[in-house]
Amino acid sequence: MADGAAYVREHAAEIEAAAERIRPHVRHTPLLATDLDPCLRLKAESFQRTGAFKVRGAFNAVLEIHRRSPEALGVVAASSGNHAQAVAVAARAVGLPAVIVIPFDANPIKVAATLAAGAEVIQDGVTFENRDQRLREVMAERNLTLVHSFDDWDIIHGQGTAAREMLLDDPEIGTIATPIGGGGLLSGTALAARAWGRDVRVIGVEPEVADDARRTLRSGVIQRLDHAPDTIADGVRLLSIGRRNFEVMVERRLVDDIVTVTEEELEEAVSRAWLELKLAIEPSGALPLAAFLAGRLPGRGRPIGLVLSGGNASLDLVARLLRAR
Amino acid sequence: MADGAAYVREHAAEIEAAAERIRPHVRHTPLLATDLDPCLRLKAESFQRTGAFKVRGAFNAVLEIHRRSPEALGVVAASSGNHAQAVAVAARAVGLPAVIVIPFDANPIKVAATLAAGAEVIQDGVTFENRDQRLREVMAERNLTLVHSFDDWDIIHGQGTAAREMLLDDPEIGTIATPIGGGGLLSGTALAARAWGRDVRVIGVEPEVADDARRTLRSGVIQRLDHAPDTIADGVRLLSIGRRNFEVMVERRLVDDIVTVTEEELEEAVSRAWLELKLAIEPSGALPLAAFLAGRLPGRGRPIGLVLSGGNASLDLVARLLRAR
Repeated sequence: MADGAAYVREHAAEIEAAAERIRPHVRHTPLLATDLDPCLRLKAESFQRTGAFKVRGAFNAVLEIHRRSPEALGVVAASSGNHAQAVAVAARAVGLPAVIVIPFDANPIKVAATLAAGAEVIQDGVTFENRDQRLREVMAERNLTLVHSFDDWDIIHGQGTAAREMLLDDPEIGTIATPIGGGGLLSGTALAARAWGRDVRVIGVEPEVADDARRTLRSGVIQRLDHAPDTIADGVRLLSIGRRNFEVMVERRLVDDIVTVTEEELEEAVSRAWLELKLAIEPSGALPLAAFLAGRLPGRGRPIGLVLSGGNASLDLVARLLRAR
Repeated sequence: MADGAAYVREHAAEIEAAAERIRPHVRHTPLLATDLDPCLRLKAESFQRTGAFKVRGAFNAVLEIHRRSPEALGVVAASSGNHAQAVAVAARAVGLPAVIVIPFDANPIKVAATLAAGAEVIQDGVTFENRDQRLREVMAERNLTLVHSFDDWDIIHGQGTAAREMLLDDPEIGTIATPIGGGGLLSGTALAARAWGRDVRVIGVEPEVADDARRTLRSGVIQRLDHAPDTIADGVRLLSIGRRNFEVMVERRLVDDIVTVTEEELEEAVSRAWLELKLAIEPSGALPLAAFLAGRLPGRGRPIGLVLSGGNASLDLVARLLRAR
């Protein structure tokens, strides 16, 4: 097992290579200051291509598949939404077919965008529970290469490019908070924070009803939810984090804490983002803002960077939240 | 009368001085790329301090009043909203009292923000029609210095700093479109475009029901609306452009065209900004986007910069627009 500094150094080199590789395909998103609090720095990945950070990892992974395996017949992914679009767009860019397995009740905006990006979508009879099995069947039948949405080093290194940009744009940042579902974004962020930050505290935020990552960090053993969590944060609706994410976050102790927010706090954060920050973000993307507004992100007299991971909210949800105010 | 090049040069020097003067107080807002069209560049002044570009001009004017007239007792302004907040914030920064005259039926979000910034608000009995008269009364009674919202060189030079930033961030921009109400933003933009742009076409966008600026440009004589226009773009609800704005836009021919959009096109643009561009903008700020979506901004094979001037939409309006989809 490599020592801590060497481990971070090796992964940082991969994140830097990922940044170079994906540069022609993704955006360097703005780091926004706000009237809400002079300490806040918002990494608005809602302005990323496809409206979410997921293209960072997807492009890195698909470009690497294309380079390493020129004989690959196509790629396959399972996703509740943003990873689906991201893989579809990346596969089209390199000329590979993409097949995406999406639960039948996923956010229709994300499904439509995946189809528009030229992917084949398999949704019929797919549920949150049987999704991974259907994915394996499709992979085997059609001889496709998997692009896992979080438990994959290329994905982790691609997602880490967002925190790298943040820290290059504002080297004073002392805390970074990101949403945590499967752990791709948070583990990439943790590696980047150690490489490009100066004593940066890294915090994951998840819905209270989906607190497996928090319990995993506390117990030191991967915890699984026993059913699909009932949260409006559809982007983090996963049962557990992955093995590689566990390695970075827990075994290597690169994540300082994981905090939770209630559904009410999350709804409040989505509304306030729109009304006060002028940012249209989706519930998963609002997780760090919800934690900040609830006072769960300790200030340290240095700027606090929040990765607002995406903006693909369903119209119904937003209309409901604004009506309720 | 100075020749064209000298005229632009002198005003450009003032815009540059304004940029320097206001730098500690305002934000360099991001110039966003989008998935909608690869040519688009969005100057998101919705992320400006107070949520609108108006602080640029207001800080420039108030700082100059403070410098030139240390004996000034305070400032006064009339505004339908964003200029009100902007003057309040700028006056507080230099320690001057601010009195703002606002029509009784103005957007309550903007009124609340003006009060929160420490200004005295006079709204009782103030209508769109008697606003200017009330303003003159208050000025005379209390010996305050006027900060006009558009017909003032310091305001024009301050507003021009937004286009200057755009062109420094992307020197390839070939067209810039801004909203036009009184003409402060558009005349500042026209001056900046000539100074920092390379053969840039400058276009103003106004509501069809408030087309005085278009008729002014066509006729060469200032045209006035005969009543308050019934438009959701509350930020451009003015009867005519100002004398200085006329000088820049029409006499000096620094604006290439003024186009109009219908109320339906404007509503569509506000909704699409939120859903597709992830930007919470107010109707006045959506004017250039509406013109672009309606095909009224001719492409020239170079990037098209839209100044999305603000984000302070009323909650009722946004809830209604989203419900209607």
